[in-house]
Order: sequence, then structure tokens, then C-alpha cells
Amino acid sequence: MRLSKLFTKTLREAPADEASKNAQFLIRGGFISKVMAGVYEYMPLGWRVLDKINNIIREEMNAVGGQELFMSVFQNKDIWSATERWDGAKEVMYQFKDSSGKELGLGFTHEEPLTAAAQHFISSYKDLPKAVYQIQTKFRREERAKSGLLRGREFLMKDLYSFHADQEDLDRYYEEVAVAYDKIFKRVGVKALRTSASGGLFSKYSDEFQVLADVGEDLIYVCSECGYAENKEIHAEGGSKCPKCGHGFTEEKSIEVGNIFKLGTKFSSALGLDFTDEAGAKKPVIMASYGIGPGRLMATAVEVSNDERGIIWPETIAPYRVHLVLLDEQGARSKEQEVANKIYEDLSKKGIDVLYDDRQDKTAGEKFADADLLGCPVRLVVSKRTLEKDQVEIKMRNKKEVAFASLKDLLSQLP
Amino acid sequence: MRLSKLFTKTLREAPADEASKNAQFLIRGGFISKVMAGVYEYMPLGWRVLDKINNIIREEMNAVGGQELFMSVFQNKDIWSATERWDGAKEVMYQFKDSSGKELGLGFTHEEPLTAAAQHFISSYKDLPKAVYQIQTKFRREERAKSGLLRGREFLMKDLYSFHADQEDLDRYYEEVAVAYDKIFKRVGVKALRTSASGGLFSKYSDEFQVLADVGEDLIYVCSECGYAENKEIHAEGGSKCPKCGHGFTEEKSIEVGNIFKLGTKFSSALGLDFTDEAGAKKPVIMASYGIGPGRLMATAVEVSNDERGIIWPETIAPYRVHLVLLDEQGARSKEQEVANKIYEDLSKKGIDVLYDDRQDKTAGEKFADADLLGCPVRLVVSKRTLEKDQVEIKMRNKKEVAFASLKDLLSQLP
Repeated sequence: MRLSKLFTKTLREAPADEASKNAQFLIRGGFISKVMAGVYEYMPLGWRVLDKINNIIREEMNAVGGQELFMSVFQNKDIWSATERWDGAKEVMYQFKDSSGKELGLGFTHEEPLTAAAQHFISSYKDLPKAVYQIQTKFRREERAKSGLLRGREFLMKDLYSFHADQEDLDRYYEEVAVAYDKIFKRVGVKALRTSASGGLFSKYSDEFQVLADVGEDLIYVCSECGYAENKEIHAEGGSKCPKCGHGFTEEKSIEVGNIFKLGTKFSSALGLDFTDEAGAKKPVIMASYGIGPGRLMATAVEVSNDERGIIWPETIAPYRVHLVLLDEQGARSKEQEVANKIYEDLSKKGIDVLYDDRQDKTAGEKFADADLLGCPVRLVVSKRTLEKDQVEIKMRNKKEVAFASLKDLLSQLP
Repeated sequence: MRLSKLFTKTLREAPADEASKNAQFLIRGGFISKVMAGVYEYMPLGWRVLDKINNIIREEMNAVGGQELFMSVFQNKDIWSATERWDGAKEVMYQFKDSSGKELGLGFTHEEPLTAAAQHFISSYKDLPKAVYQIQTKFRREERAKSGLLRGREFLMKDLYSFHADQEDLDRYYEEVAVAYDKIFKRVGVKALRTSASGGLFSKYSDEFQVLADVGEDLIYVCSECGYAENKEIHAEGGSKCPKCGHGFTEEKSIEVGNIFKLGTKFSSALGLDFTDEAGAKKPVIMASYGIGPGRLMATAVEVSNDERGIIWPETIAPYRVHLVLLDEQGARSKEQEVANKIYEDLSKKGIDVLYDDRQDKTAGEKFADADLLGCPVRLVVSKRTLEKDQVEIKMRNKKEVAFASLKDLLSQLP
């Protein structure tokens, strides 16, 4: 993509009411645009990052047998009344009446409708286990939405749901998904700690995946010896010593990027999702649910990987791998432009993502500042000075050193 | 995908209140599931079809320079008031107050928020032209939602918006997108007629893309000589003769699968999206918008391509290219199963989509009925009878004849 053609421009300032670093950098870089408190639009650069995150999530969900589907935003009051959650959900769920007077909610989670849909398809032990997931926009009433993409009123969510015949199978799959979650966070480039939490409906515990960060809204307790982590609620119930090895805890602030829950039979019992076991007995299906917020994950990557000049994207989710800067004092048809154009075309043909700063009306200082703000991993510079030696300057966004590659060997020397 | 593992099953009956063929076949096939009138969930098979349609659309939108982004569902009353559309939109827009008393709408189109966002990025003729698009869930009040995916209260929409410095550039790009639309509909496998329509805000005319179908809600007039088509409103204004060649019209029912509008400066003037031209004068940006409903397109493909037994998917959007049927009288570990397993693995390795009916508890009749209902283009059958001659039976969903290929040459003989 040529910067001269890109829909967005970098901005000098983010809105005054944006305190969080992720919103500041993402808005200034033109990755996102603010609609209202807690509601953002993904501009083309931001959508590229999100798409890469979503595809990493898809690959790992498919690898554990998850089948992708796409539920509706509108949800029926009836099924939420059946699980006795409609009234309790009022605080977080946008609920309203349609023109016929029927009450609807905007989905913030999909246990009820998916359990209802599964009744068409699950009736025997032979139909189990099953796992389905979606990546979808969800809605949540948030009184104080002030953390950029970390806490929104409208946000993307990956939610996986699994269906099992017995607890042993649920436990096995739950651990399989926990491993897939570890892989996702590693691939996205953030270090997430599996953290014991309360809130499971079936077993006493659930698990959260927490990324240590100054701006985190959560408090977790990490054992300095064995790495075991637990959240505030679990910590309040337990002692001051790690239950695994007896050592002490360190209190840390963190951002929750994922969570996994054993739901047991709460939803299947309430909505009548039964199956017939091998002996012919009717039993409620055992369920679990597993969430990741792709937008929150993007924001977390920004919060934990930046410097005063801008974002430092992990390579796997960078909008472009290479940011190619043309410094072109003579304007159009210069040798520099000719070489930079050729590099842009050659790398693009090789399937390498390149953001090409071909703008004619920007100074070298402005171009370097934008490259640092946008945060692509590799910066290439083509200028009169580099061409005197038939070279291209190479700098990694996360390093200080500058190196040079000969024009001929650029592709093989590209980090 | 093995049918024994697929989340969904085919159903004997669709809900009694579903009159449309698309809803009947898509629900019975397990492609979609009904939540309430006009609201459907895409189950894994349906999501695969939709994903293929979306990707065809993406390729053609990218080819005309469209940059993908993702706007928000929540929209501000303020900007809709600025264009004087808030009150008029009440009939089609879900509008409600959030907990702070602020009025919000659920987006059914995105001219206002996109024009507002573009103000950050467009200020000079050098920033033009630009084109951006999204594929996103939209919402629309529909009193009588009874046509399956053809008319929903919640539905996917691809909306492209373009920004221009002058009308000449707008006209050029508008025609470029019209050609891209033709390509999309051809690739998806439906025959769409570009149809003159009223409703343009800038020029007098807009264009609709209409697919002839008995169940269409629209009436269009097609010249039997030159193929020129116009909609009801244009026809009422014009004469009974084709304006291009003077011949008569045939009245046809049709489904609108896309539309393109020249918006002119309505939105840019109201919301202050100006640019400075080469002479230094300030002017409002000229805009156009271009819509396609991917879900409606999926439904249209079903409406125009089916028989009494089920769907006949165009190859480009079929959930799977091959439906492999194992007829296995001896049960597990038979020669038939061994051969079918190997075909499934071999074709999958070659990157061919295969839906493999490996179910043990279904009769041949049930398996053939499901293959016809699901509508994949190529049906392969492995049975005791075919293996006696080391063959596989091949039948195309859209033909009656049955052919045979030797096991060795299956891949090269696959249609």
C-alpha cells in the first residue's frame, strides 16, 4: 500500500478525553477512529491488524476441532428468561422493545441462543462432543468506557462453545483449549499467564488469561517461584502462600485477554438440551465456553509494546511487515523514486506486505516520525545517500542500530 | 469435513411459518437457523457459503482500489440530525436511548459516520479519490420479514463509499464499480441485470442489479431486443418503448442484489467534508455509495438454482466442492470404508473441499437425499458395487447422468 493512497493519515493529536496509551497511539496512527465513548471504528490499518489476529485465532480454533459459525446480535427475551438471566443481565445488556412490542437484547454472550440452536442437532451421545465458535460484534453497557479498545460498549469477541457427554470429556477438551489459548497469545506476541479465577458455574474455578501491564484493571497474584497465578477473588479466599509450592506471591496489575468457563448443565437443563446416552438414559449436555476479545488483544499488544514515539507491533500482527521510506529531494522521476518503486514492486510480488511512504510533500523527519508511530517491524530507507553506495538502509522498529543492505541482496538480507 | 462430526444435521422440516424456498432449503440443510422473524444464524455450512461470497466481493472491491475497514453498529443521533435524516429514518432504523439518556441508532447504512470520519483524512485534492468498504451486520425495522434471507431485520451488508474531487472522476469510478459488480454476480453464479432506477441524490438515476426470479419482490421492465432494463418507478415516468432501441418491454419479477448511488455533496455539505482544489478554492467532496447484501445473494442463488430435492450450488460458492458418500453395508473396517477414507484424505491433501458422509447409521436413500438437499456440485459414491470394478461413481448435482472413474484416475477425472 502506498501511503499517498491510504485512506487515513496520521494525526497530531488524539481526542482530549482519551487517556489510554492504546487509544492515543491507535487514533493518532489512523488505525481506529472514535465514534463515541467506548465505540470505535477500525480504519484500514487497524482492520489489517485485527484481521491478522482473527486469522491466528481461527487457525488455532480450527485445530482443536472448532467449527466456525455466525450467530445473531438480536436475542430473544424468552430464552434468557428460561435461564433466569434476563433481569440480571439488564445492567450489562442493551434491551429494548421492537415495533411489535416484543423485548429484544443485543448479544454480549451467546450461551442461550446457541443452546437453543443445538437442540436441532444434538440428541444422542453419538452427536457429542461438538465445538463451535464465532468472531462477532458484541454489545455491553459500560458506564465508564475510558480505556480505548480495552473496554468498549461495542467490541469484537471470539466465543467458542463446547458440548460434551460427560465431565471427563469436558475436562480433557477444556485443557486442550487452554493450550490453544497459550498458542494464540504467543503467536500474537503477548505473554499471557493462565490465572485461576472464580466464576465457574460447574467446577468452582474458571481460568483467565492475564497479560501483565501497568494499565491493567485487574489485580493478580503471581508466585515468584513456580509461576502459578490467581486472581483477586481466589486470593482473598486462599492464603498468602502459593498452593502449589508454598512460596510468596507478587501482586501485579494485568489485562484479561481471555477466559474459559465450565458451564456444566446450567444452560442445557434450563433450555432442554438433552441427549440419550449409550444405556438409553436421557441426560443434559455438559457445556463450556471460551472467550477472547480480538480488539482488546490488539490494544493489549499496543499497551505492552511501544515507546515514546509510537507502537512496536509484533511481527505476526503488524499491519505491514516492511515500512519503505522514500527520501526524494528532487521530486518525481528521481533515481531514488525509481529504485524505491522497484523495491516496492519486487517485495509485493514476493508476497511481503509493504507500506510504501511515497509521499512527495513530507520531510524526512515527518516520514521517520510516522514510521515510528505506525510501528511496522522493518523500516527500509532509500535516499540519495544510500544509493551512492547502491544500498538500502535497514532498521528494526525494536532496535536502535541501523544496517545497510546492497540493492542486489536486499531480499536475502531482509530480517 | 466428516458429516459424522459436523455440528448440524439435516432436518425433516423447516419452521411452519417459512414460506420462501431459500429459508426452507437453507434451514432443512442446516445452513442457517431461525432466531425470530427476519433474524437468522449462520451455521457452519452456511457460514462457509457466506465466507466464499464475501471473499469474492473482497477480491473485486480490492481490485477497484477499495480499502477494507469496519465501522461501528452504534451511530450518533447528532450526525444524522446534521443531514436531517434522523427523524425520517425512524421507520427503518432501530433507535433507542442509552443509560445516560443519549439517543443512539443501529446502523442500516454508513454515509454519516464515514463522512464524519473522512474529515480527519481528506482536506486536499491530493487526498482524492478514495474508496473504502466494509462487510458488516446491519439492522433494519421490517414489519413483515417473511422472505428468509431475502429481507431481514439483521443482515450482512457490503457497503463501499467513494470520495471524489469532481463529477467526471465520480462518473468514471461509478462505471468501474458497475463492472466490478457484474464480475461479482457472474462469479457467484447469478445472472444480474443492471437496471435503471430512480433514487439518486445527485444525478436523477441510480442503478440496481436485479436477478430475475418468480419470488422477486420487485417489478422490472426488460427490453426483449437490447436487454436494457428499468425499474417500476422509471418505467412509470417513461414510455412503453425502450429508450435505447424503441422495442417493447417484458415485465419481470426480480430480486435486487445490489445498488449503486451517486450521492453528490449531500453528506459532505451537511457534515462539512470539504477539500481545497488545485486553485485553492474550498469545495465539498463528491460521494457515491455502493451496496451488496451477501446473505441476500446467498438466498438468491438458492432461489434461482434448485430442484424439488434441494439446492444446486454454483461451484464458486458451494460449501464443499465434493460430497463423498460411503455406502458401507458391513460397517466399520470394510474395504469400502478404507477406500472412502483414503479418497477423503487424498482429495483434502490436494486442497479440494470434501464433505464426507461417513455416517454408519444412515441408509443409502437417506445419504443420497441429504447430498441432493445440501447441493454440492460433485457427488462421489464408494460402495461394494463400485469397488467390484475398482471404480467410484461420479454424479454432478446439476445433471442426471451417472459416470464412473477408476480409483487410480479419480483425481484427473474429477469434474
